Amino acid sequence: MANGEWFYEDQTNHIRIGVQVHKLLHEETSLFQNIKVYDTVQLGRLLALDDVIQVTEADEFAYHEMLSHVPLHAHPNPESVLIIGGGDGGMVREVSKHESVKRVVLSEIDEAVVRVSVEHLPSISHALVNNPKLEILIGDAIENVKRYKDEFDLVIVDSSDPTGFAEGLFSRDFYSNVFHALRPEGMVTIQGESPWLNYRPLIKRIYGDLVDIFPIVKMYWANVPTYPAGVMVFPVGSKACDPAVPVHPALSSLKYYSSEIHEAAFVIPWYLQVEQM
Amino acid sequence: MANGEWFYEDQTNHIRIGVQVHKLLHEETSLFQNIKVYDTVQLGRLLALDDVIQVTEADEFAYHEMLSHVPLHAHPNPESVLIIGGGDGGMVREVSKHESVKRVVLSEIDEAVVRVSVEHLPSISHALVNNPKLEILIGDAIENVKRYKDEFDLVIVDSSDPTGFAEGLFSRDFYSNVFHALRPEGMVTIQGESPWLNYRPLIKRIYGDLVDIFPIVKMYWANVPTYPAGVMVFPVGSKACDPAVPVHPALSSLKYYSSEIHEAAFVIPWYLQVEQM
Repeated sequence: MANGEWFYEDQTNHIRIGVQVHKLLHEETSLFQNIKVYDTVQLGRLLALDDVIQVTEADEFAYHEMLSHVPLHAHPNPESVLIIGGGDGGMVREVSKHESVKRVVLSEIDEAVVRVSVEHLPSISHALVNNPKLEILIGDAIENVKRYKDEFDLVIVDSSDPTGFAEGLFSRDFYSNVFHALRPEGMVTIQGESPWLNYRPLIKRIYGDLVDIFPIVKMYWANVPTYPAGVMVFPVGSKACDPAVPVHPALSSLKYYSSEIHEAAFVIPWYLQVEQM
Repeated sequence: MANGEWFYEDQTNHIRIGVQVHKLLHEETSLFQNIKVYDTVQLGRLLALDDVIQVTEADEFAYHEMLSHVPLHAHPNPESVLIIGGGDGGMVREVSKHESVKRVVLSEIDEAVVRVSVEHLPSISHALVNNPKLEILIGDAIENVKRYKDEFDLVIVDSSDPTGFAEGLFSRDFYSNVFHALRPEGMVTIQGESPWLNYRPLIKRIYGDLVDIFPIVKMYWANVPTYPAGVMVFPVGSKACDPAVPVHPALSSLKYYSSEIHEAAFVIPWYLQVEQM
């Protein structure tokens, strides 16, 4: 792809986003998927997996901050965190900012995503390198999560969309195994897709599965421009704490998250509430 | 444009949205602009002015409800409302739902937008027809607003983007004339564009102009999927009331606005706050 050409993602079969690029920096097809990194004209670098935008440097902070810092500020003392997916390292970067966190396990199926991100997306991936808190497990998280009992304060499901190998990360059995991997005050936050269009039935199902498994289930949202409809919802299952209430002062130097945003993010417009889906 | 073809809007020079359409229902070039109405595959009908999406049936409620019902619920007794632009009728539809509102003036420069919307977008425009509260003024709002002194409880600037004939609707002189058209408890809400990309300097300037003119100035936001970055901000200038505090119970049967959303909408992520622009 030459300077000035356009990358397109079909967000649904009938709606697409186009991003003008300077250059394709890297492309490979791993065992699991096609991986591309572009240098874009207006959004910094962009990582696409099977031509679906995972992150851009311009707006990734909104997604990574909100999926991680909401539970990390709501849990009384988060020490151990399991990240499912997240091979680009953005979630590890955010989680590692918390002094209370002593151990971060990243369970990523595709080593190529980690390797490519370390090479081509350093602003996002830098916490993957020389991070004494971090263990990286390359393998299927659906299997990996079964080895843990009562071990994590927080599980973050930072997955790609529910097709192919990621589909099992949206299943009730998986959430049930996550429940058992969590300590008594633990919680799980989930990349819950966009609530406007195709994924409404999926979101309703995820939420219902969590309600069957966790005593406390809530959902919040954030504006992430390069995701479909510019918005994503995050279902949360919690064993004991109210995820909507921050119990620590906000970390400094964040660009999206604040204590006020934490609480406001749980207020969702009627049409986007799970009861309407 | 034939069945299955794509309509594209360049949201910036480097980012675009594509929407697949069944059919172009209407096209004309008025004295002011090119007007198109499409029947889309996934978003219902779509109105584009100079190839910029103004409304789609799928998400127009988010924009229309939030730009109108926030000030209408914050003002103690809104009786008279001036809408600038808004020829599609969506804002008239929302404003007319309030029993307290006795008079709605729509100042639209382009009669063709009103006519085309009445014919092709009835779900949005229906309150333009047989509405005893409504006066429609076809003409330049920059001039029209000068005739009013101390006359409106609310002015809503429902304009297109700040290019060509709409540019003057984003000027300090215009806001000053709006101030004089407002009653002592009056307020103005403004279509303030998307806060992620190109419009950040403009938003900062609008906000600064309002601060020079109005004693109370705030900004809120809403998720509108088909606008750039899926989000729009709404600067508010107020003579006396706090626009962030609803003083009436929420109208029923709304799809986005609620009392809780009213308050949460004034909580804006750090990066999108006017101080960072």
